[in-house]
Amino acid sequence: MGDDARLQDILTHLDQGLEAGLERLVRFLRIPSISTDPAHAGDVRAAADWLATDLRELGFEVTVHDTPGHPMVTARSQPGRARSLLFYGHYDVQPVDPLDLWDRPPFDPIIEETPQGRVIRARGASDDKGQLMTFVEAFRAWKAVHGTLPSDLILLFEGEEESGSPSLRPFLCAHAEELRASLAVICDTGRHADGRPAITTQLRGLVGQEVVIDAADRDLHSGSFGGLAANPIMVLAQALAALKDDQGRVTLPGFYDGVEDLAPELARDWQALGFDATEFLGRVGLSTPIGEAGRTPLEMMWNRPTAEINGIAGGYAGDGFKTVLPAQARAKVSFRLTGTQDSEAVRAAFQDHVRRFLPADCRASFHDHGASPASVMDISDPAFGLAKEALGQEWGQDAAYIGAGGSIPIAGDFKQILGMDSMLIGFARDDDRIHSPNEKYDVESYAKGARSWARILTALR
Amino acid sequence: MGDDARLQDILTHLDQGLEAGLERLVRFLRIPSISTDPAHAGDVRAAADWLATDLRELGFEVTVHDTPGHPMVTARSQPGRARSLLFYGHYDVQPVDPLDLWDRPPFDPIIEETPQGRVIRARGASDDKGQLMTFVEAFRAWKAVHGTLPSDLILLFEGEEESGSPSLRPFLCAHAEELRASLAVICDTGRHADGRPAITTQLRGLVGQEVVIDAADRDLHSGSFGGLAANPIMVLAQALAALKDDQGRVTLPGFYDGVEDLAPELARDWQALGFDATEFLGRVGLSTPIGEAGRTPLEMMWNRPTAEINGIAGGYAGDGFKTVLPAQARAKVSFRLTGTQDSEAVRAAFQDHVRRFLPADCRASFHDHGASPASVMDISDPAFGLAKEALGQEWGQDAAYIGAGGSIPIAGDFKQILGMDSMLIGFARDDDRIHSPNEKYDVESYAKGARSWARILTALR
Repeated sequence: MGDDARLQDILTHLDQGLEAGLERLVRFLRIPSISTDPAHAGDVRAAADWLATDLRELGFEVTVHDTPGHPMVTARSQPGRARSLLFYGHYDVQPVDPLDLWDRPPFDPIIEETPQGRVIRARGASDDKGQLMTFVEAFRAWKAVHGTLPSDLILLFEGEEESGSPSLRPFLCAHAEELRASLAVICDTGRHADGRPAITTQLRGLVGQEVVIDAADRDLHSGSFGGLAANPIMVLAQALAALKDDQGRVTLPGFYDGVEDLAPELARDWQALGFDATEFLGRVGLSTPIGEAGRTPLEMMWNRPTAEINGIAGGYAGDGFKTVLPAQARAKVSFRLTGTQDSEAVRAAFQDHVRRFLPADCRASFHDHGASPASVMDISDPAFGLAKEALGQEWGQDAAYIGAGGSIPIAGDFKQILGMDSMLIGFARDDDRIHSPNEKYDVESYAKGARSWARILTALR
Repeated sequence: MGDDARLQDILTHLDQGLEAGLERLVRFLRIPSISTDPAHAGDVRAAADWLATDLRELGFEVTVHDTPGHPMVTARSQPGRARSLLFYGHYDVQPVDPLDLWDRPPFDPIIEETPQGRVIRARGASDDKGQLMTFVEAFRAWKAVHGTLPSDLILLFEGEEESGSPSLRPFLCAHAEELRASLAVICDTGRHADGRPAITTQLRGLVGQEVVIDAADRDLHSGSFGGLAANPIMVLAQALAALKDDQGRVTLPGFYDGVEDLAPELARDWQALGFDATEFLGRVGLSTPIGEAGRTPLEMMWNRPTAEINGIAGGYAGDGFKTVLPAQARAKVSFRLTGTQDSEAVRAAFQDHVRRFLPADCRASFHDHGASPASVMDISDPAFGLAKEALGQEWGQDAAYIGAGGSIPIAGDFKQILGMDSMLIGFARDDDRIHSPNEKYDVESYAKGARSWARILTALR
């Protein structure tokens, strides 16, 4: 039997097994594996064990690894001569507060008919239990048809993704040899806004930096000292205001070193997305992109670095008024990075910039928060083109290479620690309400997601 | 007997009665008249009654007026043919926390020897019970020598000065006819830093303004939206930073309308003060005046308007880092006014200025806080020159006309409601620790303060 025939058998198997697959997902979703809440530590472990049991039954060689936090589940299929792939998902979920905004208990899953089609409603349905089960179901169907699992698979399931992944990097370092594959496949992203399938091929990096400006050794009375003594809020405002010029460009010297214009292939894909910035911004009460002059909205979001002030505080900002000339002001600033921008160079340039604004008697101190470079995947790797084509066949419309404005730390960790690029493919929708009450996952996402993996696996074997 | 001889008798009487006067003050200070604390309302009234009793014994016609808050005490001497003077002081005191920083109970006054001379240590010793008793003791000595009180005196003692004077303006309006005098004399200020006597002849005004910048209808993820959506902290920083130019001048159009350079007579007095800005700033951990280019430090503090940011808040400023692109940012800004600057014009110019920085999708809203014009006394009134000369005779060094950078609301209220200028004379020292633990008042301030009033009264009769 040829690959095509077997693929058809797998797809048929998936279609016929959809309800059974949904029942498995419902059982998985019943486990309240909230990783941030110590009271749920036992539930997180139960979810790990549930996965381990399911994978063992499928024929994977499974290990549940203890960590200082929640367990890591790894699984391997039999060795073969295929290209090795590491599939990643996470089995922990976000907290559920505010509980009173849920229409039903978050861990009592239901398959609902809605005007937009059937959905699975529960905490974790989309992020990420439903998503990770799409590839597990694909492996199950493959096994049923082929009699064996796809060879050379490594699976990694994390239980701390929603609580900052404290154990992840040490675990990757300690298990680098077992986990290294030729490509990582991460199923924790979504389709494009219009529903078409997408592969996320670039993620912006991030540098977080806190700056504190100190002046007098105490808060002063603004009547007595105003006009004579330095005001650290004003110093901070002047330094921050000067971070961007009137074209929306970041002014730090050397900031754009390593930033590259979009490759023509990606530019075409992004153009074809027909992204409607007005509609996108309209959902959050905005209407007009304000970014770098001469850039498209998607470029601004995905392929251009930026500087944002995430927080600022100084003096008295409560009710009423206090005529204080404060001793201190502080801000948290982050830079989103693209291309090969050097996060430490950006950090240093920002610090130099702030220091240039310091008058006599003002001091700046800096607290470094996380830094990660942008992730730009090498789409000349044939796996990308094959996966893109497979997705197009499943969904009946061209898949798109897209970017993401935020970082997905796991992709950077895989690159940095294991030297692997990541192919980010997920089926979530913008309206899945992840991290919010009444989270859902479309049954279509689940069903066609599993079918997509069957096609991709076939294409990559 | 001539006026000079009688003055000498009064001064001698004051010297001989100093210990008895200190005992009276100690009794007054024992009353914990903390006006902000409702638990002390009875004590505040007890202090009013104590004063009323003392003044009645001296021959004043005294009324204790109920108000919605704490009582107002008014007193009148007999009518005569002298210029009417309204003396003002306040008998309430600041709270005492943190109590553990006091070396002894704040309402158990003690007369202490210190390396700098004898001091009276207690809450209220300097602010303002000790100060107001300087003129009461002068009236007492006058009565002892002349047999009658100085004629045409009106006294006003407030019990809410330390809690924002909520009843004062309604009271002044309701009693305008009885309270109007040709000049108000306020004893709630200090000597100059070097100890020389001083008359405060100008006070800066104040406009307080809160500005809120709103953008999206919720906090956004700075990864997803950074570079595309307006950041209200950045908008606010840019508007605030542009409030001053690189010469330290406020950039609002028309801002300096009504600001006047210092009259030569005042410029000479201020020059003669030998103000050491480095020493002054050194006390609060600073060293270098940073203000308008080309202005002396005292001009910056007393005779130049300024813009200060009193508070700012937006986004996440707590521990750690949140990659939020906030929906809102806010700041409290105040302008100190001099000359005849129009507070409402300044407010309007600031609002126009902020609006010029608003990109699409950002809205500014404004909350008005208090506004008061600058107070500039007419020193061509002979009372000023006479009082200045009398102070010089008592203290053995020239008295100085000085300014104050903050506002003293009562002076503005007297001007606005009663049409009276105020002569601000007090004897407090910079190191009196008013509003702080271990408040004190120098016995020298008390003794020579009372003697100063005897001289001034004599000169003005």
